[in-house]
Amino acid sequence: MKPLIDCSVAVVGLGLMGGSLAGALRGRCAEVVGVDRDAAAVAAAIDRGFIDRGTVDTFGSVGEADITVLATPVRTIVRLLGEIGPRMRDGALLMDLGSTKARILEAMAVLPDHVQPLGGHPMCGKEVSGLEAADTALFQGRTFILSPLPRTSPEALDLGASLAYAVGALPLVVDAERQDYLVGTLSHLPYLLACSLVSTADATTSSDPLVWQILAGGFRDTSRVAGSDVTMMLDILLTNRDEISKAARFCVGRLEHLIRLVEAGDEERLRSELSHIRQTRKEMYP
Amino acid sequence: MKPLIDCSVAVVGLGLMGGSLAGALRGRCAEVVGVDRDAAAVAAAIDRGFIDRGTVDTFGSVGEADITVLATPVRTIVRLLGEIGPRMRDGALLMDLGSTKARILEAMAVLPDHVQPLGGHPMCGKEVSGLEAADTALFQGRTFILSPLPRTSPEALDLGASLAYAVGALPLVVDAERQDYLVGTLSHLPYLLACSLVSTADATTSSDPLVWQILAGGFRDTSRVAGSDVTMMLDILLTNRDEISKAARFCVGRLEHLIRLVEAGDEERLRSELSHIRQTRKEMYP
Repeated sequence: MKPLIDCSVAVVGLGLMGGSLAGALRGRCAEVVGVDRDAAAVAAAIDRGFIDRGTVDTFGSVGEADITVLATPVRTIVRLLGEIGPRMRDGALLMDLGSTKARILEAMAVLPDHVQPLGGHPMCGKEVSGLEAADTALFQGRTFILSPLPRTSPEALDLGASLAYAVGALPLVVDAERQDYLVGTLSHLPYLLACSLVSTADATTSSDPLVWQILAGGFRDTSRVAGSDVTMMLDILLTNRDEISKAARFCVGRLEHLIRLVEAGDEERLRSELSHIRQTRKEMYP
Repeated sequence: MKPLIDCSVAVVGLGLMGGSLAGALRGRCAEVVGVDRDAAAVAAAIDRGFIDRGTVDTFGSVGEADITVLATPVRTIVRLLGEIGPRMRDGALLMDLGSTKARILEAMAVLPDHVQPLGGHPMCGKEVSGLEAADTALFQGRTFILSPLPRTSPEALDLGASLAYAVGALPLVVDAERQDYLVGTLSHLPYLLACSLVSTADATTSSDPLVWQILAGGFRDTSRVAGSDVTMMLDILLTNRDEISKAARFCVGRLEHLIRLVEAGDEERLRSELSHIRQTRKEMYP
């Protein structure tokens, strides 16, 4: 395989993630080709200097690329894999940036033999979406999960790792099941909690006009990810159902336990458990 | 009553809130006296230029003050009110900064007649605590809830509002029940959700050493307030039990509803509800 610096890279989907990746890669490979079915997004990516050239022709563009990165919602990635695979160059690398991996790797497993597939998931995101929110520093210092398949060659994995390093991220090889389990709790559960919080306030306190003046910083942070792009999150929820369901039902149990302690006024046990939780949070973010 | 600029103000409790208030008030009144049972906190407040003078003698200090502000955890406020009230000057204003108001206003209602009581709750906070985290800009642009009692004179309420304006905040008069209901959902519920999230991760994914590399920004924000001071939060939870219990049980219902939609793969309804939630969040923070 060619080194990254000599590769032509096609980035399919010029939203927050794809646009940021394209912009961060540009100049670190032979060429970045931006692909989006929306011509306005392609034009904007050119305007912002994120891509060397752009096209709305997905299939044409990937035929010439040494690396194709799919940066669309998860179920679109699954669909595109089947359509794009047969059109790719011999030995080309086909990656994705989707937040769930099991379903994507199932689809990658049945790609034609001449393609090298590699699952990818950079651990960064914002509650904003679209190319206007793209930022070439988005990946800086972040973990970039790589999930190879048994058929993925060591050279293809190395090239994926080079791409992660090139955008400032730290590659970390994690198998699909483990990644889906971990992000189910660490990334997808927070989304459901944030949505439940907003939904609660919407149904109760929001009828009080004072609510807008009283909204505190705690609410803002705890609810932030409820502002995430719905299509993206819907695909995540529907392709990681089992892990999310398990994590969320466990969390309901923890919440109900804390509620019972509050209702019972069990000060000693509340103090002990809340102190342990606070300590855990401090260790997570020292 | 004297105008604020001529008042001597005693701030009891030199933590995050009290220290910040003292520092923000200094120079905008005749004198700021810092009071804390911890002599090191008093010394540090002097070092940081937050107070004109300081003392560990709570009762001595409040006898001379025109305004006393209690900036301790809620149940300490309730206890101090009974002890401080009789020692205060005739006509002096006695305020607090506690996050729950019903219990505090009950205690204020039985203060001696010569004292003017006024409940206060500035809507700002951090997950850090203590004087080292204090910041004279903490109140800038924030809502400062004022909860007067039937016995509070219009002049005393005006003086409280002047104090709020003096530290850069926007006073908002809200009665105690309404404030406890609103902050139960907007401030205390987020704490329980954040704690449940950390507790879930602690019990499940945290046994995987990769968890530390995968922790995403969504988890950090959603869990932030779980790092709040435990004694402060414990007092809040135990003095606003009914509202918090109602809000949290409602939220459990919303969360379980979303979980069921995910489990059922009910795409149409999920899309509709998540879109509504996203829109609501956007309206909250335009």
